Amino acid sequence: MKAKSFAAYDANNPLKYYEFERREPTPTDVELEVHYCGVCHSDLHTVHGDWGEIVYPCVPGHEIVGIVTRVGSLVTKFKPGDRVGVGCMVNSCGECEACKRDFENSCFNETIWTYSSKDPIDGTDTKGGYSTLMVAPEHFVLPLPDSLGMAAAAPLLCAGITTYSPLKHWKVGSGIKVGIIGLGGLGHMGVKYAKSMGAEVWVITSSPEKTDIAKSYGAEGVIISTSAESMEAFKNKFDFLLDTIPTAHTVDTYLSLLNIHGTICLVGPIEPMPGYHSHGVINGQKSIAGSGIGGIKETAEMLEYSAKNKILPEIEIINIQDINKAWESLANKQMSKRYVIDMKKSFPSD
Amino acid sequence: MKAKSFAAYDANNPLKYYEFERREPTPTDVELEVHYCGVCHSDLHTVHGDWGEIVYPCVPGHEIVGIVTRVGSLVTKFKPGDRVGVGCMVNSCGECEACKRDFENSCFNETIWTYSSKDPIDGTDTKGGYSTLMVAPEHFVLPLPDSLGMAAAAPLLCAGITTYSPLKHWKVGSGIKVGIIGLGGLGHMGVKYAKSMGAEVWVITSSPEKTDIAKSYGAEGVIISTSAESMEAFKNKFDFLLDTIPTAHTVDTYLSLLNIHGTICLVGPIEPMPGYHSHGVINGQKSIAGSGIGGIKETAEMLEYSAKNKILPEIEIINIQDINKAWESLANKQMSKRYVIDMKKSFPSD
Repeated sequence: MKAKSFAAYDANNPLKYYEFERREPTPTDVELEVHYCGVCHSDLHTVHGDWGEIVYPCVPGHEIVGIVTRVGSLVTKFKPGDRVGVGCMVNSCGECEACKRDFENSCFNETIWTYSSKDPIDGTDTKGGYSTLMVAPEHFVLPLPDSLGMAAAAPLLCAGITTYSPLKHWKVGSGIKVGIIGLGGLGHMGVKYAKSMGAEVWVITSSPEKTDIAKSYGAEGVIISTSAESMEAFKNKFDFLLDTIPTAHTVDTYLSLLNIHGTICLVGPIEPMPGYHSHGVINGQKSIAGSGIGGIKETAEMLEYSAKNKILPEIEIINIQDINKAWESLANKQMSKRYVIDMKKSFPSD
Repeated sequence: MKAKSFAAYDANNPLKYYEFERREPTPTDVELEVHYCGVCHSDLHTVHGDWGEIVYPCVPGHEIVGIVTRVGSLVTKFKPGDRVGVGCMVNSCGECEACKRDFENSCFNETIWTYSSKDPIDGTDTKGGYSTLMVAPEHFVLPLPDSLGMAAAAPLLCAGITTYSPLKHWKVGSGIKVGIIGLGGLGHMGVKYAKSMGAEVWVITSSPEKTDIAKSYGAEGVIISTSAESMEAFKNKFDFLLDTIPTAHTVDTYLSLLNIHGTICLVGPIEPMPGYHSHGVINGQKSIAGSGIGGIKETAEMLEYSAKNKILPEIEIINIQDINKAWESLANKQMSKRYVIDMKKSFPSD
């Protein structure tokens, strides 16, 4: 069926209107009408070619929420009318140790990303949620808890799980001092989750004007990353730093904020990161770790957690026709929340 | 009292004979006659200026074993005649959180290293164990368990604790697959400890000729780091990699050997390390960690563990007059064991 969308045609131009055919659902596929799609910095990275060669036209978007329209004959978890989400991935081998342990996001063979991956089912390049229609295998479709609003749920599928998963894995909770580096789409979710888990949370940012908003999300205050004095005052203080900076940066100065056995966790797939001083990790048995989204099982858990604890992203709803302006604002670090595209309003005729 | 020693006078010349005065023991100091001193790659790094500006003459050596000759009036743990060791550090602030938690090696103020640090007690630059006499505060002197031979005990004070501490901290034991990168002075201790803790141990080396010796220390076999085929066969297999490479190197290829949640731990203070691909840690929630020696409490624990489990370094005893030849062999990666200087034989008149 035809999907209306916005796509990148080359690296130098903004996104433009594009129409393409989604495949007929296979027996194990779910088809959904996309209602909302969040706007992630990954979309910019991909379209700018930061993560490798791009196959054009490229349709970004991996924070997808919608309503099931059709299901394949073998699908048991969903039926037409169900509220569902699709996140950053739409397939994996299913057979390696990573997949068997519910880490499809780290498949030892190949995780198939929601856009710009080679789809093993139909051989096309996957196309994301900046479109009116989506088709994905049942295993990679997530049920939305009833109490989650559809627009607010969209950013949970990437920004939510990307911050929730490392905070859980590194046992953030009561008595733990957490710093969230960067207060954009991911950072603001990190503050809310870490606070809800019982931690003392600080925001580390180059933007002092974000102090009030950081506090409104649950942070104690902000540390100004560009101020040597501000950074010095928090030396050796943190157990865990969630580093949401989406561009190449040195971690050396952040390592000095960590207490003995502390961990800084990168969540942005940045290539390449600059060198580092091994003293920064050796002194105090510290770690530079990483985390990328989460498996399907944990994503479902995160959705339940978010619904139960009312952890929702701050969002600004836009039409897809405004996507290029939204991207510009993201690149300029002006956002402490998440843009979400209202697909139904963007294409009112559908 | 006068200490006979070998020292570096500048960066371009080998070590030469040198005589200097050790301070009179303060009330909390212990004086010891040095019997043995291990030869560590750190000694080369320091004298080559890899770790910053050098104050000459520079007397290296921080794997020191000897017999107590005098103790200060307030010393309670030692008396003349006791067999003792001094490792990599001889002081710390004693008041910060790190010191209070027994991590004097990561003192938040300043760890005073056994050589080439500014000694807060007498204002001199600290001078290490390539000498006949040592004076150090009681807290930084370690009792040697009776069953440990003095020469073999020397390398435990750096190579031993540097490998023991991270293996313990990252919970190496039964069911854990461990790779030891590099089979020199540190690596061979890493193999022995990891094996004794119950892990399955492999050695990752660029020297295929070290296979038999690796197995003799308890490894299952070796992986040849320069062979893409050998590395590919062990992709995603390891839970923990102990990286003993003493010079700058990329960790990217080693990260691919790690299983989900795996950690590579650097133990060499190398400045600077080259850049890395954050995908390497993000994909599988992996960590690039570090570890530097261990605190005094853990060093004492390591000595007891080594005595009880008979984990001893392979050593080759030399006279200090042969130190320059020994250093050359270290730099050429020819050693899978540790040189230990016999100080009494080196200076027979003492």
